[in-house]
Amino acid sequence: MDFQTKLLKLQKKNNSLVCVGLDPVLEKLPQHLLKDADPVFSFNRAIIDSTADLVCSYKPNIAFYEAGGVKGLKSLKKIIDYLKKNYNNIPVILDAKRADIGNTNNGYTKFIFHYLKVDAVTLNPYLGKKALKPFLEYNNKGLVLLCKTSNPGSHEFQNLKIKHKKLGEVPLYQAVAYNIANYWNKNKNCLLVVGATYPKELKKIREIAGDLNLLIPGIGAQGGEVEKTVKAGKNSKNLGMIINSSRGIIYAGSKKDFASKARQETKKLKNIINKYR
Amino acid sequence: MDFQTKLLKLQKKNNSLVCVGLDPVLEKLPQHLLKDADPVFSFNRAIIDSTADLVCSYKPNIAFYEAGGVKGLKSLKKIIDYLKKNYNNIPVILDAKRADIGNTNNGYTKFIFHYLKVDAVTLNPYLGKKALKPFLEYNNKGLVLLCKTSNPGSHEFQNLKIKHKKLGEVPLYQAVAYNIANYWNKNKNCLLVVGATYPKELKKIREIAGDLNLLIPGIGAQGGEVEKTVKAGKNSKNLGMIINSSRGIIYAGSKKDFASKARQETKKLKNIINKYR
Repeated sequence: MDFQTKLLKLQKKNNSLVCVGLDPVLEKLPQHLLKDADPVFSFNRAIIDSTADLVCSYKPNIAFYEAGGVKGLKSLKKIIDYLKKNYNNIPVILDAKRADIGNTNNGYTKFIFHYLKVDAVTLNPYLGKKALKPFLEYNNKGLVLLCKTSNPGSHEFQNLKIKHKKLGEVPLYQAVAYNIANYWNKNKNCLLVVGATYPKELKKIREIAGDLNLLIPGIGAQGGEVEKTVKAGKNSKNLGMIINSSRGIIYAGSKKDFASKARQETKKLKNIINKYR
Repeated sequence: MDFQTKLLKLQKKNNSLVCVGLDPVLEKLPQHLLKDADPVFSFNRAIIDSTADLVCSYKPNIAFYEAGGVKGLKSLKKIIDYLKKNYNNIPVILDAKRADIGNTNNGYTKFIFHYLKVDAVTLNPYLGKKALKPFLEYNNKGLVLLCKTSNPGSHEFQNLKIKHKKLGEVPLYQAVAYNIANYWNKNKNCLLVVGATYPKELKKIREIAGDLNLLIPGIGAQGGEVEKTVKAGKNSKNLGMIINSSRGIIYAGSKKDFASKARQETKKLKNIINKYR
């Protein structure tokens, strides 16, 4: 089943637009896990087992695993294998923000889609559509392109006013949204990343991108508000969003009950999102 | 010794601006190496031993190693360790085109600077300066920001006309060059990536960026011409360039003499670059 279908199916089944970011930092893990052979795996597994019926996807950010070198990447592979084996209906989005030129991307697609076997990956659009062709050809995968990122300072280039053939004078991020929705999405496998920290920009992107699925980080720890986000981001079917929370959920507790605390927070976020859509 | 000093020292000692891209593809390696325990390592080592006195740096692109999963990344670590042990005066640039937001980058810096221990890394500027602060704080490392990339289609966003406070109406890549040279480079650790396939843009970037070091891929296999590149890209000291060739050098031969063929090509490129600068 392709990524978009799998996502929609689970969003409906679990009645949830919540994505949990699996971003473990060794220093922040509950103390009692540190004696395990692979504390990162134990941590992730507990979070997953405790939240699987409440989410529409999981999103490990590979930076948190690369931090541990080859050992960290083995933990990443292990947790993705665990998800595939036990929760094969849950799409996994690798947050990797990759992009290179032409054939070089084949190395990345081998790693991401054939070795790690995730369902979707985040990509950086700066090199353009032609460069990312090796990714875009995977019509069964999700390609989640950075558009307006959630961080302070994302305006530096993303909000520069540009001249676009179809849109006229608009900020760069709108040109990115337009091109991806209209020119990159031949295989219906594209999504956009838009930070919850910028609800006005989110609204504008929704207008430009039609019903395209948006991955929306920045809720919670980064300061994005749920009501504004949902109202600005939902599509014509009251769907079209994957709303990610990482720290707010996975570090809700720091003791033995961290997984049940994570469940509480996931449920809370799921419900408040559903309230406003 | 910091990256920029190390680079300049070796450029002068070896009288070379050539960087060899260590981008091994298993299917392209000479047959006789495939029986080795780690053919990728054997291949890289032979290339390095044969060219070390002719280069100013090596640039492994991590995509080619990730293609092999954890095993591929072990080969990458091994070849960097080999370089550090035997050729510690040669700067190693990891081509990874990374970028994430704020603290997430700490995972990448741990991996790239503390685990792999390379001297420099390529980064994508789309998220802005504030996002990349964890990288920019490494004043002893080289941070090589994508500016105008060598691929067909790089104009899609990079050449959109934007309004910039200081430059007026210019293509986006010029705003990227300006901001990096003037605002990002407080620690004198920034460089720019500019494709040899776009000599006009290269010339413009040289004007904007002053004497900043440029990493220039796209010579050879990608079609960039040496004379145009050198004339457009050199700085006021007839330096300021790291001219990369990967396929043109490492696959110059496909038999047992591949390393000496690689040496010939490296020498040829070194000399023709020096002829025009």
